[in-house]
Amino acid sequence: MNVYADNAATTRLSPVALRAMLPYLENQYGNPSSLYSLGQRAKEAVETAREEIAAAIHAAPRELTFTSGGSEADNQALRTAAALGKKAGKTHIVSTAFEHHAVLHTLKALEREGFSVTLLDVHSDGLVRPDELAAALRDESCLVSIMYANNEIGTVQPIAELGAICRERGVLFHTDAVQAVGHLPIDAEAANVDLLSASAHKFHGPKGAGFLYARRGVRLQSLIEGGAQERGKRAGTENVAGIVGMAAALSERIPRMEQDAARVSALRDRLIAGLSEIPHAALNGDAARRLPGNVSFCFEGIEGESLLLLLDDRGICASSGSACTSGALDPSHVLLAIGRSHDVAHGSLRLTLGEDATEAEVDYIIQNVKEVVERLRGFSPVWRDLVSGKTPHIL
Amino acid sequence: MNVYADNAATTRLSPVALRAMLPYLENQYGNPSSLYSLGQRAKEAVETAREEIAAAIHAAPRELTFTSGGSEADNQALRTAAALGKKAGKTHIVSTAFEHHAVLHTLKALEREGFSVTLLDVHSDGLVRPDELAAALRDESCLVSIMYANNEIGTVQPIAELGAICRERGVLFHTDAVQAVGHLPIDAEAANVDLLSASAHKFHGPKGAGFLYARRGVRLQSLIEGGAQERGKRAGTENVAGIVGMAAALSERIPRMEQDAARVSALRDRLIAGLSEIPHAALNGDAARRLPGNVSFCFEGIEGESLLLLLDDRGICASSGSACTSGALDPSHVLLAIGRSHDVAHGSLRLTLGEDATEAEVDYIIQNVKEVVERLRGFSPVWRDLVSGKTPHIL
Repeated sequence: MNVYADNAATTRLSPVALRAMLPYLENQYGNPSSLYSLGQRAKEAVETAREEIAAAIHAAPRELTFTSGGSEADNQALRTAAALGKKAGKTHIVSTAFEHHAVLHTLKALEREGFSVTLLDVHSDGLVRPDELAAALRDESCLVSIMYANNEIGTVQPIAELGAICRERGVLFHTDAVQAVGHLPIDAEAANVDLLSASAHKFHGPKGAGFLYARRGVRLQSLIEGGAQERGKRAGTENVAGIVGMAAALSERIPRMEQDAARVSALRDRLIAGLSEIPHAALNGDAARRLPGNVSFCFEGIEGESLLLLLDDRGICASSGSACTSGALDPSHVLLAIGRSHDVAHGSLRLTLGEDATEAEVDYIIQNVKEVVERLRGFSPVWRDLVSGKTPHIL
Repeated sequence: MNVYADNAATTRLSPVALRAMLPYLENQYGNPSSLYSLGQRAKEAVETAREEIAAAIHAAPRELTFTSGGSEADNQALRTAAALGKKAGKTHIVSTAFEHHAVLHTLKALEREGFSVTLLDVHSDGLVRPDELAAALRDESCLVSIMYANNEIGTVQPIAELGAICRERGVLFHTDAVQAVGHLPIDAEAANVDLLSASAHKFHGPKGAGFLYARRGVRLQSLIEGGAQERGKRAGTENVAGIVGMAAALSERIPRMEQDAARVSALRDRLIAGLSEIPHAALNGDAARRLPGNVSFCFEGIEGESLLLLLDDRGICASSGSACTSGALDPSHVLLAIGRSHDVAHGSLRLTLGEDATEAEVDYIIQNVKEVVERLRGFSPVWRDLVSGKTPHIL
């Protein structure tokens, strides 16, 4: 059996989205900036996509700027708020320790440029406490950036509540919603956000396309200077096919979202229950306030990387942390942020189910993870020390 | 007859490139950062594409960083050189007045940050004089940025000669080669460039993909911070299909380039000869040292925009300046840079032939431009004043 259970890393492009893209990869190749009909048809396709996406997140079309993906959108959002803050003499930023690196590394760069950054605790359940956000805000705060749903452990923050605090204090609020858009109902207005980032390939759209929502009145700063595309906020010829595919993928998700979320959540809970039978294993992040498809576990006494390779041999695609850092040997900063030790964090497994996941697949995963964990522990000197009582169990 | 003569704005995606892309838009949807086979196959596709593109421009694969397009590559190149310069206490930049806006607007931003910029004259023939570059360089110069071939008037600079001057003076040399790659033979080593930008959709690759060549030893600065993709120089999940399509499109061009260039140049010269029969018309830029497919004219007494719309009615896609600025009412900064007056610059027409252009198409263009120019002049009070001698002819 082949089971793709790494939908947080990337998703299969929807055939509906591909079908929508194809004309723009074939005959409708005009440059949207061109005056003649071929160009204007491409322009219309981009603007129709903008309207579709705006409708999907309850925004106005002119509040959306198309980018090359979620990382670019995150960078632009943070750079915009920082520039606006600097102008107003405000150089304090609040975020969390378990943001995506597109946020954390940009914050590091901003620190080098003179900003100060407070990272909120996300506690062992992977959730930010609104009162702690309120306490962290200062008069010189210019930005709060808190992800909508975490990419590794899937916990979903109380965004509207956090946003309300920011709004009351007059601080811009950005949310990296890369894992949320297309999976959770998003209402940009009700969520009290000023800036919101998304990436097409996380919701069955194509890689290389994303968008940044900026609430009316928040003047985006260009990250890429040049032509007047995107109303001067993002230069470069539009990725027409990518934009069209992104809109088609998101539009396809919206009417099915509630039903899919309920079904996938049930499968997720079945998977969590099954893996919980493995001794000395623990779910990462709150069991209920998490993305429908996200299951993240730590297993004592094993290496996540070996686990992934053996699962791959059995046809299961999974991840140990975020795909962006899977090349790194450091344990996941997300797992450290929720208080896992280095050793335990190394034995992590992330399984992220797609909308087409089945019960049979979930059962196949449970059976195989059980077998592989047992097999790896058989080889593991760390596990031997745990079993013999030489080192104490943590999980 | 339908004639697409705006290949400098964008090109039709090559069917070969689309065929190469399709697997990555269908079943091979893995994230290149993922450890399992599906991810590793995507990773291999990206690295194979890097090798193909490197071979096409005589570079080493690790000298290439994939971007979302030419504008991003230009921005990153300039930002890198500026950051390196600043560290060394060097804050002077040399460029030209007729660069693409991705360069000019980034230079404007750098000026606001304390850099000083000298823009070289491009003379009436649209060519930079190497001795003028040598004279403009200062001890505190950190960067020279001169485009390989101009996007509006098609003039091709003596890049290797300009690069040699920079190298001798120890100044980084960037060239925006967006219009050149895939149309002219490029040898990054022999061209004496340190940084070179390119865009896939200008050589029959997909929109949304480009690359930045950075010579070994030039440490790129990230424009987009985040994951460790592109060896830490460009964060964000790779646009796998876009990258694969870009490589396929460029690889397709290389063996045919010499033959195509000769054939298209002959058609270009036929088109230039035909349009030169129109009274009070003038070719923009040097007649010989220009891109194979580029024809750029100014016609006295008409508005370029009306010309384009009437040509569109007759099935001809053309441009008055660069596509990126076609929404603007200002005359082209390129035409002003070569000394055209505002009035004359408004009556401009750019025709850029593709590799599949035919003699019949060229003749169709000549006939229709002649008719349309005559018709527009019939309505034009400006033309009436010129004919009556009330205002003197310039062209």
